[in-house]
Amino acid sequence: MKKLILTITLLASASSPVWPQARRAAQPPAPPLPKELSEQLLTVRDAALSSDYAWRQLAHLTENIGPRPAGSPQAQAASEYVAAEMRKLGLDVHLEPAMVSHWVRGEEKAELVEFPGQSSQTTQRIVLTTLSGSSATPADGLTAEVVVVHNFDELVALGRDKVAGKIVLFNVPYDERKALAGYAFEAYGEAVVYRGRGAKAAADLGAIASLIRSVGGADYRLPHTGWSQPAPIPAAALAAEDADLVDHLAAEGRVRMHLTLTPQRLADTTGYNVVADLKGSERPEQIVVVSGHLDSWDLGRGAIDDGAGVVISMATAELLQRLHLRPRRTLRVIAWMDEENGGGGHDAYAKAHEAEIGNHVAAIESDAGAGHPLGYAMKLSPSAITALQPLLEILRPVGCTIFRSTNHSPGSDIDPLVEAGVPGIGIIQDGRKYFDYHHTAADTLDKVDPRDLRENAAAMAVMGYALAAMPDALPRQ
Amino acid sequence: MKKLILTITLLASASSPVWPQARRAAQPPAPPLPKELSEQLLTVRDAALSSDYAWRQLAHLTENIGPRPAGSPQAQAASEYVAAEMRKLGLDVHLEPAMVSHWVRGEEKAELVEFPGQSSQTTQRIVLTTLSGSSATPADGLTAEVVVVHNFDELVALGRDKVAGKIVLFNVPYDERKALAGYAFEAYGEAVVYRGRGAKAAADLGAIASLIRSVGGADYRLPHTGWSQPAPIPAAALAAEDADLVDHLAAEGRVRMHLTLTPQRLADTTGYNVVADLKGSERPEQIVVVSGHLDSWDLGRGAIDDGAGVVISMATAELLQRLHLRPRRTLRVIAWMDEENGGGGHDAYAKAHEAEIGNHVAAIESDAGAGHPLGYAMKLSPSAITALQPLLEILRPVGCTIFRSTNHSPGSDIDPLVEAGVPGIGIIQDGRKYFDYHHTAADTLDKVDPRDLRENAAAMAVMGYALAAMPDALPRQ
Repeated sequence: MKKLILTITLLASASSPVWPQARRAAQPPAPPLPKELSEQLLTVRDAALSSDYAWRQLAHLTENIGPRPAGSPQAQAASEYVAAEMRKLGLDVHLEPAMVSHWVRGEEKAELVEFPGQSSQTTQRIVLTTLSGSSATPADGLTAEVVVVHNFDELVALGRDKVAGKIVLFNVPYDERKALAGYAFEAYGEAVVYRGRGAKAAADLGAIASLIRSVGGADYRLPHTGWSQPAPIPAAALAAEDADLVDHLAAEGRVRMHLTLTPQRLADTTGYNVVADLKGSERPEQIVVVSGHLDSWDLGRGAIDDGAGVVISMATAELLQRLHLRPRRTLRVIAWMDEENGGGGHDAYAKAHEAEIGNHVAAIESDAGAGHPLGYAMKLSPSAITALQPLLEILRPVGCTIFRSTNHSPGSDIDPLVEAGVPGIGIIQDGRKYFDYHHTAADTLDKVDPRDLRENAAAMAVMGYALAAMPDALPRQ
Repeated sequence: MKKLILTITLLASASSPVWPQARRAAQPPAPPLPKELSEQLLTVRDAALSSDYAWRQLAHLTENIGPRPAGSPQAQAASEYVAAEMRKLGLDVHLEPAMVSHWVRGEEKAELVEFPGQSSQTTQRIVLTTLSGSSATPADGLTAEVVVVHNFDELVALGRDKVAGKIVLFNVPYDERKALAGYAFEAYGEAVVYRGRGAKAAADLGAIASLIRSVGGADYRLPHTGWSQPAPIPAAALAAEDADLVDHLAAEGRVRMHLTLTPQRLADTTGYNVVADLKGSERPEQIVVVSGHLDSWDLGRGAIDDGAGVVISMATAELLQRLHLRPRRTLRVIAWMDEENGGGGHDAYAKAHEAEIGNHVAAIESDAGAGHPLGYAMKLSPSAITALQPLLEILRPVGCTIFRSTNHSPGSDIDPLVEAGVPGIGIIQDGRKYFDYHHTAADTLDKVDPRDLRENAAAMAVMGYALAAMPDALPRQ
């Protein structure tokens, strides 16, 4: 999950308090589900809640394959693995090519070489990680004074005179109190703008490098990487502790840093979305997408971002095949490539499937972690939300009952579909700890609770099967 | 805080539930404190609780000086800084030389080069950190199969045939549930034996390297360094996530690791204990020690281990001088050098002060973090504990009221004194999170809560001043 404006808007609405049920009660009642479908959905739900399929797939993706940045051999291996697993289930599988980013991190290190209180021979190590839009420093690094600001206004107020030739540090904290109160995506949104636009803004005033405080919670000297706007200067994120160190020292006197970042943006290369169809029995041309993104950042192993989204989509197909449930419409599992660093996967899909976009009945993406599912963020017409009300009784035991309307696509990979009018749905997860691990080395399998993952598989499978099996397709937006 | 047997025994008793007060009530009542002393102690306590002196000192030690491993220029700078600060207060200060360890970490990296599910060209990065007793690998590393065991019995059961030529991984978890239940030191004790003795045991069976799972909580891909018995093979601690990864993969098939560790144990060098006396007014030859250790591991900045112990000892002197309280006996502030990697500081002190050990009335050391102080671990005679009962009323508002008797020295630097019969006292802190940060890069200033630090300063100053000012010296053990 990377996007800036999109994600912020989507998930801000996803994590704010639920509307009063009273408002919903005033709407006309939804027609009940057909009895057979209702029973099938209960069966799907309970089978998901007792299955370790998703967990085993996640273990393989994260531990036997590992980090899966777009353009890497691991990403390629992951696409082939998911395709093979879907073929095993009997789905109609295509590895669909896409031009994807190919970014290599290189070396990343920094130390303070001058600071107040320094004694001879001493330097201080700074923990940081390169952002995707960074230019490289010379191979032996650069050295400059650091100026610290806490927002864009302070940067502008400093002006070119005080910024040119310097390293700018934006020390803007991710608000952990907001996150723990249930507003993690708002906290993320407030800070991530500096990751996205900071380097460009600093470069515009003549800075020779740009640093941010990592966007995320936790206090374990852990830097968070991520997408940033391509900039003509090096750009990195410091661990929170190191941002505060530099801020403290710079308030006392001159701080100079030696910084070495050697990322390379290689030529775009061919990656693959996995597109796996369980053909519909009555309206095979109508498509319901269940999806997550297969690529991850390179530091961790891509468990919560977004191996989880992929494996609960895979689990939807596995459950339906195991239970011999053939939906009316085609259930399409997609494992997207390069969500994090370019969006080449979803762009290629939108282009290759342009002619059938009108046949996409709905698109679901899970890309906000693997926490306990609380409900769905939906870009649907009001009548479509009403039509889904009967699902609440199926989902209530899972605790996944919030239906929240959003104004933007609830997932960046399904954005091109949603923009074209396809109803879009995302799963709302408990996100209080999501940004503690997001885009860090600590995004590993153990951060996923097996029970939460089963619940997410239930949330994806119930919604996916319902949309593919309901008598009438959802009305378009 | 590093020691194995000592620490375990000491702190096991420090963190187990308090004895019933009923037992204490059966003892004869302690004589009350003289009224003037009682009032002075209230003044000391309240002044400590409203002072930011300790915090400012800790900020300087951790951020302006930084990591302070024995033998480093930072350790030297720290000794000189503390000495200068104590001189500013008007104390009689000596920088007392000691032969201390000089260990340099060098390079440390590892990756899995063969594992089940591997696709061509892929490897997996392993996060680890070298232990102090490690030998070096060749400069370009070594490569071998990894065998995983979960205790010493499993290692022995494997035997030389299955261990020789391999890398052994002891995957023994630190029990976070015990820690959160208030038994952090027991949890530490159960796991740290593998850090201490693992490499030697593995080498004895022909292993060519030894790895442990990091001893400590938290799940942020953070390796914990520390002391280990010198061994003829390389030795390192993996992040918990990496230990589990290797364990999982090795259960499925062959795992081979490429490991590079290039630590150097240089010749011992001269470091300095800071010994600063506030001379007693009536019995200057009688000494009460208040202390912490100034050296730290190199990965973090030594805030909780053990900058905190040093600065609350410094604060004791600052409070007494500011309040113009001259105790009957000499109050001696000691900032010990090289607690972590050899104990050269306290050995040198014991030797240099051999003739006056009989005049040490008591020795206090704080070396279990900067969490809220709950009371004291004491190696005292029962009558001495009784004599301290009146302090409970002074300390009750701080919440620092547990008087727990121990059988071992409640601090490794004061161990030589305690062994010689000097009453020994440690502060018991809330240790639930201590081992999340202990010996990691994340041991930084922000891990200390300013209020907790003020409470610790009060706990040290009240006890230190009481012992130095009471009419009668504590009875020896």
